[in-house]
Amino acid sequence: MPETRSFIHAKQAKPPFFVGIDLGGTNIKMGVVDDLGRPLSWVTIPTEVEKGAEDASRRMGEAVHRAIAKAGIEHKAVARAGLGSPGQMDIPAGMLLIPTNLKGWNYFPIRDRVSHHSGLPVSFENDANAAAYGEFWVGSGRDFESMILFTLGTGIGCGIIIGDTVIQGAHSNGGEVGHIVIDFNENAQMCGCGQRGHLEAYASATGIIRRTQEILRAGRPSSLSQRMAAGDELTPKLIAEEAERGDDLSLEIVFETARYMAIGTLDTLCTVHPAAVMLGGAMTFGGAEKELGRRFLARVREEVDRLMPPGLCKTPHIDFASLGGDAGYIGAAGIARLDYLKPALR
Amino acid sequence: MPETRSFIHAKQAKPPFFVGIDLGGTNIKMGVVDDLGRPLSWVTIPTEVEKGAEDASRRMGEAVHRAIAKAGIEHKAVARAGLGSPGQMDIPAGMLLIPTNLKGWNYFPIRDRVSHHSGLPVSFENDANAAAYGEFWVGSGRDFESMILFTLGTGIGCGIIIGDTVIQGAHSNGGEVGHIVIDFNENAQMCGCGQRGHLEAYASATGIIRRTQEILRAGRPSSLSQRMAAGDELTPKLIAEEAERGDDLSLEIVFETARYMAIGTLDTLCTVHPAAVMLGGAMTFGGAEKELGRRFLARVREEVDRLMPPGLCKTPHIDFASLGGDAGYIGAAGIARLDYLKPALR
Repeated sequence: MPETRSFIHAKQAKPPFFVGIDLGGTNIKMGVVDDLGRPLSWVTIPTEVEKGAEDASRRMGEAVHRAIAKAGIEHKAVARAGLGSPGQMDIPAGMLLIPTNLKGWNYFPIRDRVSHHSGLPVSFENDANAAAYGEFWVGSGRDFESMILFTLGTGIGCGIIIGDTVIQGAHSNGGEVGHIVIDFNENAQMCGCGQRGHLEAYASATGIIRRTQEILRAGRPSSLSQRMAAGDELTPKLIAEEAERGDDLSLEIVFETARYMAIGTLDTLCTVHPAAVMLGGAMTFGGAEKELGRRFLARVREEVDRLMPPGLCKTPHIDFASLGGDAGYIGAAGIARLDYLKPALR
Repeated sequence: MPETRSFIHAKQAKPPFFVGIDLGGTNIKMGVVDDLGRPLSWVTIPTEVEKGAEDASRRMGEAVHRAIAKAGIEHKAVARAGLGSPGQMDIPAGMLLIPTNLKGWNYFPIRDRVSHHSGLPVSFENDANAAAYGEFWVGSGRDFESMILFTLGTGIGCGIIIGDTVIQGAHSNGGEVGHIVIDFNENAQMCGCGQRGHLEAYASATGIIRRTQEILRAGRPSSLSQRMAAGDELTPKLIAEEAERGDDLSLEIVFETARYMAIGTLDTLCTVHPAAVMLGGAMTFGGAEKELGRRFLARVREEVDRLMPPGLCKTPHIDFASLGGDAGYIGAAGIARLDYLKPALR
C-alpha cells in the first residue's frame, strides 16, 4: 500500500491528539493523529502472533510510547487511543473471541491490556469498521454523511458508517457484506465460509481465480495460459496485467467482477442506502492510478445505474478509497476521538 | 388488521403526549399516545387522494383535534406529532416528492401543512420506518437494541432501527430490502420495479401468485386448481387455506417463501446485523395465531440457521410483529417523541 499522507509537525497540529492502532495478522501499524485526522507519526511492529496476546499487547504499549515521542508531543497531550482488530470479537466487552488471523489469542481482554501497557484509555473496534471510519473522517468519504467501504482482497471486508455511528451490529457482526447471497440457486459458487452464492465467492481474489480457472479449463484461449505455462501463478495481479495487454478473457473477468460489486453495492443501497460507496484494498485492479482500475470503477458505476430499482431515485457516489494502508490506524484514532467527544452516544 | 392494543385512560397515562399519524393510500389512522407508547385514542379518516394534498392536510389537522378530545386531554398537553407517509419523499425537507400511492400530491410540503392545521410541531418519516419504530419501541422488538421489520404484502416493505437511529438512508431511501438481488442470473424473476431477481419478485404476494401460476400451468396437480375452477381467485389467502387443508403444492409455496425470507434476513444480517428480525403485514400466513403461520415462522428460523455463514456466530431473534395495524401511528408518535427528547440527535 502506498503511504498517501505526509506527516504534519506538532506545532501545526490541532490538539487533542489520538493514537490509532491497526492490528493485523502480520504487522501492527500505529500512529498519532491530531484532532483533524492528520498524522504526526507512525510506527510499525511485527505482530508475532505465536508469542501470544499479552506479549503483543506489551509491545503495542511500548510502540505507542515510541510513536508519541516521534510525534514530538507529550504523553499527557494524547486524549485516547483506538484499537482496530480482526474478529471474532466482542466489541462492548473489549475482548477477542476466536480471531481467525490471531491464532491462540482466544478470549483475550485486549482492549484493557493495551490500555494498561500504553497508559491510555482505549476504544475498541473491528478493523474493517475502523478503516471505513478513517475514509469517512478524512479520506474519500469525508464529504458524505454516510458511507460504506468495501475492502477487496482475499475476502471482501466491509464497514458501514452512518453519521457518526459505526454499524457494529448485534454480537459485533455488522458489515459482513461479503456474505450476502447474490445467487440463491443450488449450483451457486461455494464461498470460503462453506455456504453458497455469496458475493465473496464471486468478487474476492479467491472467487476471481476460481472463475478464471473454470473458463480456462473449458478451453477458452487466453494469454493467461501462456503466462501460466511459463510458470506464473494465476492471481488477480496476473489477470490485471493481461487485461491491460488486451487479453479478452482477462478483461471480461475484470468487468464481471465490476458487475458483482455493483450487485453488492445495490444490496447495501436497499438496506442502509449510504450516500457514498468506496472501494479499497489490494484488488481494485490498480485503483485510480491505473487505466484498468479506472475502467473497473467506471463499469461498477454503469452497472449500478443499469441495475438500480427505479424507486431508489439517486445513485450514490462511488469511488476508490484514498487512504490506502493508513485508513486502519487513522480510523481507529478517529473512533477514539468519537468516544472522547461523545461518550454518551456510544 | 386486528386492533391489538386497548386504550388507557388519560388519568393512568404518563405525559407528555404525542400524536401519531399513519398516512396511507386509502385511509389515514391517527392516535394519541403517552410517553410509554400506550394509545389513549385513535381516529380513522378516508384519504380521498383525489381531493388533493392540501384538503387532506386540513382534514388530518381536524382529526388530530378530534383524537386529542377523544383522549380526554388538552391540546397543550401534546408535545409533538409524527407523520408516517409513503414515498417518494424528502424526509429532511418534510416534502412528498412523487408518491406512488398518493397521485397528484407531488412536491407537497406535507409536514408543514399538517403542522399548520394541527397546531403541533410535526416530525416526518417514511411509513415503513415509522411502523418499524413502533414495533421497536413498544411492540415485539421492545427488548432488542436493534431491529428490522419486514412488512409482507403486495410488495415487501422494510424499516431498520439501530439504537434510537431510524435508518433513513441517503435521499430518504433506506430500508428498501424488497429490492435486494437474491438471484443475479439473466433468467431470474422480474420484479414489479422492472429489474430482475429481487427478493420482492419471489416473496411478496405478487411473487407468490406468479410462482404458483407457473407451477400450476406446468400441470402439477393441486386442490388450488379445483378452487380456481370453482371461481376463487388465486391469492396468498387461498394458498394458505389450501396449505392448511394439506395441499402439497400450497404448503411447498409457503415453505419456499420462508426460504426466500430467510435469504433476505441473512442479507440484512450481513449488512447491519440487527438483534431482532420481525415479520409483519398481511402475508404472514396467519401469523402467530394460526398453525400455518407458526410453521412458516419456524421454517424461516430453520433456513436462517441452515444458511448462516459460520462467521456470523449468532442467529438473531426472529418473530412476528405484534402491533398489527397500530404500528404505523404508534411508531410515528414514537418518532415525534424521539425528536422531542433528543433534537440534537436527529
